[in-house]
Amino acid sequence: MSGPSIITSRIQRVENGVRSSRMDDLAVEEPLEIQLGYMRNGWRVHKSVAVTMRTPGHDEELAVGFLLGEGVIREAGNMVRVETLEPNVVRVELQDDVAVDLGSMERNFYTTSSCGVCGKASIAALRMGERPIVKTSGPYFPEAVIHGLGAALRETQEVFSRTGGLHAAAIFDADGKLNGRREDVGRHNAVDKLIGAQVLAGRLGELAGSLLFVSGRASFELMQKAMVAGIPILAAVGAPSSLAVELAQETGATLVGFVRENRFNIYTHPERIT
Amino acid sequence: MSGPSIITSRIQRVENGVRSSRMDDLAVEEPLEIQLGYMRNGWRVHKSVAVTMRTPGHDEELAVGFLLGEGVIREAGNMVRVETLEPNVVRVELQDDVAVDLGSMERNFYTTSSCGVCGKASIAALRMGERPIVKTSGPYFPEAVIHGLGAALRETQEVFSRTGGLHAAAIFDADGKLNGRREDVGRHNAVDKLIGAQVLAGRLGELAGSLLFVSGRASFELMQKAMVAGIPILAAVGAPSSLAVELAQETGATLVGFVRENRFNIYTHPERIT
Repeated sequence: MSGPSIITSRIQRVENGVRSSRMDDLAVEEPLEIQLGYMRNGWRVHKSVAVTMRTPGHDEELAVGFLLGEGVIREAGNMVRVETLEPNVVRVELQDDVAVDLGSMERNFYTTSSCGVCGKASIAALRMGERPIVKTSGPYFPEAVIHGLGAALRETQEVFSRTGGLHAAAIFDADGKLNGRREDVGRHNAVDKLIGAQVLAGRLGELAGSLLFVSGRASFELMQKAMVAGIPILAAVGAPSSLAVELAQETGATLVGFVRENRFNIYTHPERIT
Repeated sequence: MSGPSIITSRIQRVENGVRSSRMDDLAVEEPLEIQLGYMRNGWRVHKSVAVTMRTPGHDEELAVGFLLGEGVIREAGNMVRVETLEPNVVRVELQDDVAVDLGSMERNFYTTSSCGVCGKASIAALRMGERPIVKTSGPYFPEAVIHGLGAALRETQEVFSRTGGLHAAAIFDADGKLNGRREDVGRHNAVDKLIGAQVLAGRLGELAGSLLFVSGRASFELMQKAMVAGIPILAAVGAPSSLAVELAQETGATLVGFVRENRFNIYTHPERIT
């Protein structure tokens, strides 16, 4: 019932100074809404309890595992049925005698900032101007600066090199100068810290000429954070997700992945890499 | 004001068949609560809007970057002040004229399952028996099985090898037999899918003899998911966080990190690795 877990996208590969066009596989990232059906005051009610950005496939298992982790169910016998209502919506119907304390469950969630209840809805919101669209044609970053990002970041990434346990994020200008970097166990936190520092320093406006570099993968969430801060280029050491590529394509941002000293891939708007 | 970003922990290093005790650096993971102060109907109200598991340090920047990403603020001038109330609580006071639509903001969050409003509170809850404590002394996994986990997982990890964009999670028994694996852009989703499949197959009880192996790092969230499912051993290719180690130590679970063909680290309860 759910969509594919891989899609193919046309990219520009830059390797040893040679640029070529080719097709590349992307891991699909899409929102899944988990709904719960249960008895409350003698009535059966249905409620959306979580949205998670996931790769389609095994969605019903995902919903069941999630509810077990939250303590909502304890065994298979707690459920009447699990059904996929739409490709991105799974509903779990509980037995009549299973008590649900959603107040407690809500306190047991922690939130991370992201796309919204539905990635598609959020992309639509971006089209409607509720979120900024990248309007600048520049800035222009030479290929050599992209190749050098990893080395420049490693020089400054102290905690990671000691523990191996942190994600890093950094801002660079088109000359390859590092203008800030932060580390965190959560990659979204590293980016929030980095951008928050620019806001507090009154330098938010300067981000329009900057590139955001992250040590891990490029998710929809990170792409969105870059855009809201007005950063037109996101470069990642790892792979981008399908939804990150889709968002960058539609809003005019440049997305670069698999950044190495001798190669990288450009997924969208390659004109900014010169 | 916030705590250290690295702490030191005593571990057992297993390398080429030799076991030694040593100190090792861990990246700290702790919950940060972000509070918002704003005007509503002529009154200044304060509300907790998010809790994120983060590495302490630059917490006020994190709160500001988070609120920018959510569209709550657009520039530094929207804020009266940003203050750290307690080591793990930051409050952002908005100007009187900044309108806040928390309903909209809540729809713009997506939730992932985890510890609760506060990791410490959740650990306390575990102590109080609201969550299961690992009671089994076994199962016992030979070192050779741990060394072979990576190769066994790679053999089956199809999407990752094509896209480089997915996390994988798998269940193994003490003979090294793989009893299930799932992949996802989100590591918590991969674990939820894996455990949900066991629930739906009526095999939840068998997990007490199993090991959970993950391709990335071992966060508090993953450690908690393993425990709630009754899995007494978590092994990770990457590093564990401080809070994952703390949770495993207190509840009797075995936590293994940096799993390679010739070495790995045991962070807690090493008696299960023989």
